[in-house]
Amino acid sequence: MTVYLVGAGPGDPELVTVRGARLIAAADVILHDRLAEPLLELARPDTELVDVGKAPGAAPISQEQINQLLVEAGRRHHCVVRLKGGDPYIFARGAEEVEALRRGGIDYTVVPGISSVLAAPAAAGAPLTTRGVSRTFTVLSGHTEPDTWPDGYAASLVGIGGTIVVMMGAARIARIAATLIAAGADATTPVAAVRSATTPDEIVARATLGNIEPVLLGSPSVFVIGEVAGLDLR
Amino acid sequence: MTVYLVGAGPGDPELVTVRGARLIAAADVILHDRLAEPLLELARPDTELVDVGKAPGAAPISQEQINQLLVEAGRRHHCVVRLKGGDPYIFARGAEEVEALRRGGIDYTVVPGISSVLAAPAAAGAPLTTRGVSRTFTVLSGHTEPDTWPDGYAASLVGIGGTIVVMMGAARIARIAATLIAAGADATTPVAAVRSATTPDEIVARATLGNIEPVLLGSPSVFVIGEVAGLDLR
Repeated sequence: MTVYLVGAGPGDPELVTVRGARLIAAADVILHDRLAEPLLELARPDTELVDVGKAPGAAPISQEQINQLLVEAGRRHHCVVRLKGGDPYIFARGAEEVEALRRGGIDYTVVPGISSVLAAPAAAGAPLTTRGVSRTFTVLSGHTEPDTWPDGYAASLVGIGGTIVVMMGAARIARIAATLIAAGADATTPVAAVRSATTPDEIVARATLGNIEPVLLGSPSVFVIGEVAGLDLR
Repeated sequence: MTVYLVGAGPGDPELVTVRGARLIAAADVILHDRLAEPLLELARPDTELVDVGKAPGAAPISQEQINQLLVEAGRRHHCVVRLKGGDPYIFARGAEEVEALRRGGIDYTVVPGISSVLAAPAAAGAPLTTRGVSRTFTVLSGHTEPDTWPDGYAASLVGIGGTIVVMMGAARIARIAATLIAAGADATTPVAAVRSATTPDEIVARATLGNIEPVLLGSPSVFVIGEVAGLDLR
């Protein structure tokens, strides 16, 4: 009668945690995202698998429906795993699922996963913090158009002077780069992009903020902006 | 003839990755931090264990010495694991170790780990991003006195308007809180503190930026500052 929100990690099945792997193998039912599919091999043959991910072309399941499925599964089964790409609490709507479970009176536990926030910069050899280079990093989603950013947001991103990580930014990275330059960022700032980090389709590319063209790799991409992106410590 | 920089995760041995656990079990020699000790149970009986952590009271091993030990081990052994608390590339000096291995001509691979940046907020039930609450988070180290922060740094931290995570901030959190308030942060902003996240000694406490006293828990603590710190989605 517990729902475990398990972070599946960035893509490579070996980057799930030992606890995550154990829970997948113990689950009565697994509600999983599309990105978490390689991990389903760890499930028992009799485990019920429910794909709640957004497959391209298929009718998407709404977040409200996922919440309801989770509460129902939590009422019916002893061990329910909600397997989410990355980490449940980083750009993954884990908070909404936990709030629904609370309202439904269902016990839950959050098991962290390796977010692409960590795995993509590592794949690009760009340590998020590095002595004498960057002591701060800021993570944002590229889902929002930069021209709708709140006043001062871009200037603050630049003003911190640390590494900037843009998640899900494939569609808007050129406009984000232009906005950061307009807010005072140096056009020569290194940028590293990683598409499909830690999967067989992984691609890494490098550019600068002023010439972003070489890193337009398509989705899903993570962009690392800052001096560390030039280190190439792969 | 490869050195694997393996993230041990935040403390709970089950939060290491499956790959990390496999490499620990395969290692000829493991150079480990003190915080990574619970994972050494996974090593073979004949694996050489070298404690390069800073035990309280003991003479510390310098980073330069650790770098040299890593290069030497990489020359002598087939599989060397450098087991680091958290993630090798987040406040862990992994970049310096990788640079030393490069200079020494030693092959290396970085295996990410669950950083306390992720695990501590999860332990406090504070999702780093939450729809309608916070879409950005900034991570910084509390090792630097706020009165030596660069001009505009505090104002930018506040100006972003997202979640702020302060790592290793136990000694300075009161001065950091005062500095953020002076830079425009609301004194009623929720703060969650987590000491020794995911270990048997874990403690979680809550306060506000203007009344930080209740969260002075001692080291090692992670502080989450922002609206998400008040959600308590544990």
